[in-house]
Amino acid sequence: MTQLAEYIDHTLLKPEATHEQIEKLVEEAITYRFKSVCVHPYWVPYCSTLLQGKTPKVCTVIGFPLGASSSRVKAFETKQAIVDGATEIDMVMNIGELKAGREEFVKNDIDMVVEAAKGKAIVKVIIETALLTDDEKIKACHIVESSGADFIKTSTGFAGGGATVKDVKLLANTIEGSLKIKASGGIRNRAIAEEMIAAGADRLGASSGVQILENETGDTSY
Amino acid sequence: MTQLAEYIDHTLLKPEATHEQIEKLVEEAITYRFKSVCVHPYWVPYCSTLLQGKTPKVCTVIGFPLGASSSRVKAFETKQAIVDGATEIDMVMNIGELKAGREEFVKNDIDMVVEAAKGKAIVKVIIETALLTDDEKIKACHIVESSGADFIKTSTGFAGGGATVKDVKLLANTIEGSLKIKASGGIRNRAIAEEMIAAGADRLGASSGVQILENETGDTSY
Repeated sequence: MTQLAEYIDHTLLKPEATHEQIEKLVEEAITYRFKSVCVHPYWVPYCSTLLQGKTPKVCTVIGFPLGASSSRVKAFETKQAIVDGATEIDMVMNIGELKAGREEFVKNDIDMVVEAAKGKAIVKVIIETALLTDDEKIKACHIVESSGADFIKTSTGFAGGGATVKDVKLLANTIEGSLKIKASGGIRNRAIAEEMIAAGADRLGASSGVQILENETGDTSY
Repeated sequence: MTQLAEYIDHTLLKPEATHEQIEKLVEEAITYRFKSVCVHPYWVPYCSTLLQGKTPKVCTVIGFPLGASSSRVKAFETKQAIVDGATEIDMVMNIGELKAGREEFVKNDIDMVVEAAKGKAIVKVIIETALLTDDEKIKACHIVESSGADFIKTSTGFAGGGATVKDVKLLANTIEGSLKIKASGGIRNRAIAEEMIAAGADRLGASSGVQILENETGDTSY
């Protein structure tokens, strides 16, 4: 049970989440020994305080969920999140520029976040598979490989489609171990979680972490 | 025809939008004399260059669409967008803190953006009506009234529900002319646009501006 929990970033990214719900998320992360809580930057200081001296890390999201903020703002947001206590940074790639084939720009955008996080937080790059063709997913893999990021991550959960076993396998076959993989979006029960890990996922983003561990079915989509 | 166009922020906020699509948006804004183009911060420098010497303004979105970034990041993102050429700033309020009744915080979050924009850009505050009860909408009106913002705006278009005539009337009756109102989300033909204006909207956010003016029906939801 602990082993599966350690794969999970326990996630609450609803814009209407309140202190009470964030506090519950943190308590569950401690109880179930999740790898991290994944929250919006606004909640990072609060979660850091609650998690002082505890095992779960604070993960946050940058340029989220659309990835279309400027690189300087993504870097600033990263620095602020780290000051506030985050040690895991899930950033959204610039999706339009990937589609336009401006790979150098996409890499530079990632590198500015990696640079801002250097030595203080790991970086996961969300490529938003639901919006990409297979060719674009492969291109995204190579760009993230060439950057200093640590993980490639499938989805925000806000683009109408989440992780699929097929996509996780495609990423795993493309990067061949050069990056870790975070699967997220739609992982709402234990069967799906185990399928994702079998396909190559090193980390799972889920708002249904408790249901996954209790072998129930969650009802949310992130 | 020109009159209706001047109500419209011609909007493209899809994360996968490319240069070609943004360029088309700008050309349409010039042709149809829309009030502004509304784009992500990443596209502000490009739109500003294309619109130099032209009438339509550059509008962008801050803390978008979830409103849960930190106030300091919202302020920084605003300053950067203004340096890049934006003169209209559509920010998303902190929705969770409104729901939690932390009205002072919500006002301060808005004021930091207003301060960053002072004298250089107008500020519209998106309250995301789809996620609020009527009581919360009224509370949000009073908070935005007490801030230095110029507009209250209904929706991001990303929360599963957009502007309704009922909500625009509720806002108009609550603020009694102390703020302007921007209705956005789901305004995809002329009939809806005219209904919103009759209900009290001073500005419309729409990705279907061309269809609205051509009296056709658009198929997108923002």
